[in-house]
Amino acid sequence: MIRFDSDYIEGAHPNIIEALAKSNFEQHIGYGCDEYCEQARNTIRRHCNDNSLGVQFLVGGTQANVTVIDALLHSYQGVISADSGHINVHETGAPEATGHKVIALPSEDGRLTAKQIAECYNDHWNDQSHEHTVQPGMVYLSCPAENGLLYSKAELTEISEFCHSHGLYLFVDGARLGYGLQSDACDFTLADLARLCDVFYIGGTKVGALFGEAVVFKGEEMHRSFRYAIKQHGGMLAKGRLLGIQFEELLKGGEDCLYFKLARHADILAAKIRNAFENKGIPMWIPSQTNMQFPILTKKQQQAIMQKYVPEFWCKYDDTHDVVRFCTSWATREEAVDELCKDIERLP
Amino acid sequence: MIRFDSDYIEGAHPNIIEALAKSNFEQHIGYGCDEYCEQARNTIRRHCNDNSLGVQFLVGGTQANVTVIDALLHSYQGVISADSGHINVHETGAPEATGHKVIALPSEDGRLTAKQIAECYNDHWNDQSHEHTVQPGMVYLSCPAENGLLYSKAELTEISEFCHSHGLYLFVDGARLGYGLQSDACDFTLADLARLCDVFYIGGTKVGALFGEAVVFKGEEMHRSFRYAIKQHGGMLAKGRLLGIQFEELLKGGEDCLYFKLARHADILAAKIRNAFENKGIPMWIPSQTNMQFPILTKKQQQAIMQKYVPEFWCKYDDTHDVVRFCTSWATREEAVDELCKDIERLP
Amino acid sequence: MIRFDSDYIEGAHPNIIEALAKSNFEQHIGYGCDEYCEQARNTIRRHCNDNSLGVQFLVGGTQANVTVIDALLHSYQGVISADSGHINVHETGAPEATGHKVIALPSEDGRLTAKQIAECYNDHWNDQSHEHTVQPGMVYLSCPAENGLLYSKAELTEISEFCHSHGLYLFVDGARLGYGLQSDACDFTLADLARLCDVFYIGGTKVGALFGEAVVFKGEEMHRSFRYAIKQHGGMLAKGRLLGIQFEELLKGGEDCLYFKLARHADILAAKIRNAFENKGIPMWIPSQTNMQFPILTKKQQQAIMQKYVPEFWCKYDDTHDVVRFCTSWATREEAVDELCKDIERLP
Amino acid sequence: MIRFDSDYIEGAHPNIIEALAKSNFEQHIGYGCDEYCEQARNTIRRHCNDNSLGVQFLVGGTQANVTVIDALLHSYQGVISADSGHINVHETGAPEATGHKVIALPSEDGRLTAKQIAECYNDHWNDQSHEHTVQPGMVYLSCPAENGLLYSKAELTEISEFCHSHGLYLFVDGARLGYGLQSDACDFTLADLARLCDVFYIGGTKVGALFGEAVVFKGEEMHRSFRYAIKQHGGMLAKGRLLGIQFEELLKGGEDCLYFKLARHADILAAKIRNAFENKGIPMWIPSQTNMQFPILTKKQQQAIMQKYVPEFWCKYDDTHDVVRFCTSWATREEAVDELCKDIERLP
Repeated sequence: MIRFDSDYIEGAHPNIIEALAKSNFEQHIGYGCDEYCEQARNTIRRHCNDNSLGVQFLVGGTQANVTVIDALLHSYQGVISADSGHINVHETGAPEATGHKVIALPSEDGRLTAKQIAECYNDHWNDQSHEHTVQPGMVYLSCPAENGLLYSKAELTEISEFCHSHGLYLFVDGARLGYGLQSDACDFTLADLARLCDVFYIGGTKVGALFGEAVVFKGEEMHRSFRYAIKQHGGMLAKGRLLGIQFEELLKGGEDCLYFKLARHADILAAKIRNAFENKGIPMWIPSQTNMQFPILTKKQQQAIMQKYVPEFWCKYDDTHDVVRFCTSWATREEAVDELCKDIERLP
Repeated sequence: MIRFDSDYIEGAHPNIIEALAKSNFEQHIGYGCDEYCEQARNTIRRHCNDNSLGVQFLVGGTQANVTVIDALLHSYQGVISADSGHINVHETGAPEATGHKVIALPSEDGRLTAKQIAECYNDHWNDQSHEHTVQPGMVYLSCPAENGLLYSKAELTEISEFCHSHGLYLFVDGARLGYGLQSDACDFTLADLARLCDVFYIGGTKVGALFGEAVVFKGEEMHRSFRYAIKQHGGMLAKGRLLGIQFEELLKGGEDCLYFKLARHADILAAKIRNAFENKGIPMWIPSQTNMQFPILTKKQQQAIMQKYVPEFWCKYDDTHDVVRFCTSWATREEAVDELCKDIERLP
Repeated sequence: MIRFDSDYIEGAHPNIIEALAKSNFEQHIGYGCDEYCEQARNTIRRHCNDNSLGVQFLVGGTQANVTVIDALLHSYQGVISADSGHINVHETGAPEATGHKVIALPSEDGRLTAKQIAECYNDHWNDQSHEHTVQPGMVYLSCPAENGLLYSKAELTEISEFCHSHGLYLFVDGARLGYGLQSDACDFTLADLARLCDVFYIGGTKVGALFGEAVVFKGEEMHRSFRYAIKQHGGMLAKGRLLGIQFEELLKGGEDCLYFKLARHADILAAKIRNAFENKGIPMWIPSQTNMQFPILTKKQQQAIMQKYVPEFWCKYDDTHDVVRFCTSWATREEAVDELCKDIERLP
Repeated sequence: MIRFDSDYIEGAHPNIIEALAKSNFEQHIGYGCDEYCEQARNTIRRHCNDNSLGVQFLVGGTQANVTVIDALLHSYQGVISADSGHINVHETGAPEATGHKVIALPSEDGRLTAKQIAECYNDHWNDQSHEHTVQPGMVYLSCPAENGLLYSKAELTEISEFCHSHGLYLFVDGARLGYGLQSDACDFTLADLARLCDVFYIGGTKVGALFGEAVVFKGEEMHRSFRYAIKQHGGMLAKGRLLGIQFEELLKGGEDCLYFKLARHADILAAKIRNAFENKGIPMWIPSQTNMQFPILTKKQQQAIMQKYVPEFWCKYDDTHDVVRFCTSWATREEAVDELCKDIERLP
């Protein structure tokens, strides 16, 4: 069995394991106030061309999403999200558990448009009884989206401009950000993101770390509130150094840093898989250019391939076809992909 | 500088680093459903003499406390705690953020008595308008307490019996459980705890792991709710294997397992420090027999010793004395303690 | 100006004012424990043919909705509602503020079907990772719905049976229940509702009272929790007698009670308005047979009629038409309706 | 039986009933946007000498407390209160249910001092790890306190100055404010309160209204948030006019308004009761000069008097004595007090 079901089925890049082992007996104060964290903060600020940015490290994505949302929103505000957004679907109501409604907008391709956001905002404020509805306070985008699609720099800019001229925070969930940034389809950089967003995070868990998300932010309120919010939401890791060490290992250097190399590796292998399906004449559900690929398979095709490669069932397509997800990652071996590609060629 | 300020200033026992490295490229499904977690679950059940126990692994203590409290309590119930309890003081209101009041009872030595709990319970139910006050639904004990003191088996049994004959859950925070179990003052075992509590946890973060708390529980409601609660509170680690691997490494074997050996090591060194202070004629704040020791020092004594060993300021004792905390841990070196002891001898 | 914008623009039926005045100087204990409340409880139980029912009186609808939801659901559960349901749209996220997600299902006519509910339930439990999504714990129906449409007894029975064979609570929001029960389209009774639901309420605010909703429930959990939940959510009226007096005044007697007479009055007048529009050839948006009517009007028609009768703008229909709402109530005068009907005849 | 157990056992002053009856068939828009509410707002602003004040009307005290706290505090902030404060003891954890910890400070006489508040504030900010504890964001005072004691203008000024020079909101719970303002012991006015506080409320429920608390506030955040918060917490009364009418009736005019006259009446009768006890040689628990009096009675004395006058058991005093509470109100008849006083004279 060669698993392609997700991008968090292995441990971490060996450099990270090594760095953890090497620093193991050093004594450091806790809670992210150590030197490794400080170093990683500066490395991230350098990638983002902005020394004033706040950076805090959290263990996982749900934790990051909820802590940001609760740190920034007033109690009567909600967060606008695509209906397929992770916070709306796969977090057991974690945002609502902090009291904030997810204002879910219908989305055909998993992404939001500036037009949709503007309509939602205007609908609220044009309503004479607007205090009877949840006030939009933030826009949440996943980038890449849950289906691997990306926003363009123009799209992000348009959304950002609307948000910032209307008092909305813009928050980008970057659980798979590396795979996005290294995609051939991507026309923006970390520095662009830092400029356009109020807060976003650089996902480590799925891109080479054992775990960890680096939340990057600006603005007084976040600087004031975020460490309180982290502790209140149970996200303050005692041995915070573990996060600093990992992100420093991933991001040190420039465009050639480990994080980018690992992500690029996965994107290239994913493109190979997509090509194999397309060459076989099997249609893809959406034109993803990141590390997740979604062929539309017949039941027979699924039978032929599921047990060996365990891709994830994604959704029903029609009565005879389903969409399944193949994920590559920093850890995917090229030989495994080659073997898969051969098996794709032989599909019924 | 040789830090004695806390028990989470180093990484993890080398066996754990090694086990993580060794399994690094294995592919496992996420969220604690892998074989390592299953193995560690069974190991814990064996230590507890109870195959029906539920076991889930969380990253940290605040996370564990809040998730348990919110999983078990009804919205109108609160949790009884000593006023010095971690959940009442050092979690930025995390329990309240889930809607539950901490019903703080005054405690002279950081521990609760069955009598206090009974009074609190009876005060509630004897009040004709009891629905105007928070209903006690759970008792929270830290064991060892935040000051290192232990409950005796008789005390735990009395509290457990009151709880279970009055519909209260008993929850024991075991962030430093190892240091408690290996103390000369301890007359109970893991199996006793599993029998007496509804839920408790075996702290890993402070006793040899990189991070991790193993929550052990019984009862229908916890089995039904706990994994939902973990996800909702952001505590579901994607690569759950990391927790399973660590706890298996710590607890495999019997009475001779690594977890107990590491804790015993720290307790012995802490006793050495206590003896050094007592021999010098410096009084201890409380008679702790676990890994934390609290001498009462003059300002001059503090000056002589703080910079080199950085113990934690605990509280003011009187106008001329303060209480400070010296922590040993699984990682404390005997030579460091010997050096400290010599310096204690020379104190003014 | 003769307002038809809502059914809560006047005070209360004069009998109620009189009853409040008459009892004004009597001394009664507070919080709904007085004799008037007890009397009204028994009156409601008699209407419902069930002496074991719990009855508590709340001031308003949002209060009632939120208190019921939070009293019954576990922290990781959500409530299924039509996307147009009041709790999903017009309560400023009040359910989410108690931590519970509204699981909104698309609804063409403002109502849910047993089939939809079953699909939602099955989707959850068939998902291997169901703990990553909010667990459905309750079904919320508005009856009549926000657009005045009713469920049939057969539909309610089918939904009730699904709920009760699958561990879901069934909760019916009856803010306008009187207008529903007295509609020609209604084939169920209060007793049917009490039998089919776990909890529902009899709306007073919109049907003749100054304010007040009588929440009727069964089941251990509600009996145990509800008064705590009322107090915690700020809904425990100090002078609870005010609610008991009003509901006793409205419901005393049998089928000829004031509540039913007032509702019937409004439904008959609403039918007159509907007929006037239909006779004029103006289409109705939906076939409501309760106290709310929704003609589809051109801009010109709106101009001719809005200022004098101030019906509520409901939604855009197409580029040249809008839907507006005309509400009758217990207080609507027949002459006002006759005048309106004449003006409808003269519409452009 | 002549009840003296609380100040909300009758209905409302007859003028109020009459005003409600008189306006009953007028048509008004809902939710506090009607003309009566606007009129009452202006009347209150006039009493407070400040036309910029916000005024919103809520039904009850718990509702008011929770809505204010949640509207103003950030999620990681708590509210400082005396441990005997209503929000800490008698609201079923309502503030915690909105996520905010009540930071309870010990209080001997039910009141807080500026010194205590300063210590609590400084303890937080002097703690290096302050983000591990709840940040104080607001001070809550009850005035009169739950035991009837008042703050002096000097005390309020000192507290206000500390709060406003340290970024804390000052919130005064005035559920019994009228009885305070009309006490011989009171040296401040409504205008003083409006000047010193960020938000306070004028209690109607206990001082002549059927129900209702007028929340008075200043500051951008409250103007922005409060109506959202009211709706979200279920406190937006559909027929808001009912509150406007009542407060206008109570407060119209100047120093001679009904509200002050009714409160003065109750205070005078309470003084009579206190004198009767003191003349009998029965000690009072505290020197209350408002409408609540707390004699310390032997069991025998209680037997002689409890059944006829049903004062409220307040607390145990010692093994042979208890404290009980006698409440007068706007509705207390002088003859009832005279009868009580005679019975006090005859006590054993």
